[in-house]
Amino acid sequence: AAAGGLGVDTPVGVGVDQELISAVPSHNPTFVARNFTDAEITYCQKQPSPPSSFAARWAGKEAVFKSLGVKSKGAAAAMKDIEILNDASGVPTVHLHGDAKAEAEKRGISKVLISLSHSETVAIAFAHASS
Amino acid sequence: AAAGGLGVDTPVGVGVDQELISAVPSHNPTFVARNFTDAEITYCQKQPSPPSSFAARWAGKEAVFKSLGVKSKGAAAAMKDIEILNDASGVPTVHLHGDAKAEAEKRGISKVLISLSHSETVAIAFAHASS
Amino acid sequence: AAAGGLGVDTPVGVGVDQELISAVPSHNPTFVARNFTDAEITYCQKQPSPPSSFAARWAGKEAVFKSLGVKSKGAAAAMKDIEILNDASGVPTVHLHGDAKAEAEKRGISKVLISLSHSETVAIAFAHASS
Repeated sequence: AAAGGLGVDTPVGVGVDQELISAVPSHNPTFVARNFTDAEITYCQKQPSPPSSFAARWAGKEAVFKSLGVKSKGAAAAMKDIEILNDASGVPTVHLHGDAKAEAEKRGISKVLISLSHSETVAIAFAHASS
Repeated sequence: AAAGGLGVDTPVGVGVDQELISAVPSHNPTFVARNFTDAEITYCQKQPSPPSSFAARWAGKEAVFKSLGVKSKGAAAAMKDIEILNDASGVPTVHLHGDAKAEAEKRGISKVLISLSHSETVAIAFAHASS
Repeated sequence: AAAGGLGVDTPVGVGVDQELISAVPSHNPTFVARNFTDAEITYCQKQPSPPSSFAARWAGKEAVFKSLGVKSKGAAAAMKDIEILNDASGVPTVHLHGDAKAEAEKRGISKVLISLSHSETVAIAFAHASS
């Protein structure tokens, strides 16, 4: 929220991403451990199709990354620093940590909304970052 | 609009959805009558490819539903309560009724923007809900 | 920005589009010259897969067009008037010219955010227009 405590938000960036579910190596424990938090892993492994859930979250992290307007991946933020957990209503919610959080703060971003979707083969995600 | 009549909006939720056009049973009159309003049906049936139009609108309803942050479908809102009609300029516009309208009001949502797109095989939709 | 210089933004429209990369005739110099600016062409031709980059930008132009809420394409805005260039951080940024700029101003739109994504076969784009 900006503008003197009025609680209003200014859109700062948007992000869209799509991933072939088969192209996200969620069967690789090293990839999973490097890029997903424990809470994300626990959630995805409980879903009907863990590969679809991991791919959707991976697309979500990419979309959030794009919405932050950060220059180069890796240098600026590890994907594990962009955590997407479902809230009590089942709504996917973005939690930023470490460098991703620092980058967001530097840009005045206080809120990142995310939505995820997957078909049998493709996961897509959309993110909206605002001050 | 929030913040004391200033006409400013705060983003509350976003929603993205994709549907295989072949997976939306728009040839089934019961499915259509349960989920689409008369005005939506009239519109879709006049389009060059009614199955594509029904699928795009169905994706749109799912995306709007996600943007409202409602817990569980069915319990909270019938898809027919999320009506998407094109305005005079051809822009798809969201009209909420019944439980969907009540849920939106409960969350302070006063505006839901929607965009739809379809290829030969896939329909996608994006929704943006704000106060 | 609206509301008396407070720097707050109201969402006016969103746009989503998808294109089969093979369906965007980026090998056709007439199509390219009619729809892309010199700076866009230079950028796309330097990318690892120029057809993917042209298709993603084309989807982006369509998404921006939808977000403006303009009635009919061609009449209202040439696609070349919607220019998408990467800023210094690599973030795709919308520059409106000619009729597209006039239409945006008429609607009070002062900012259009865009994000692009492509897989091997499909390009998708999302645009968010605000006052």
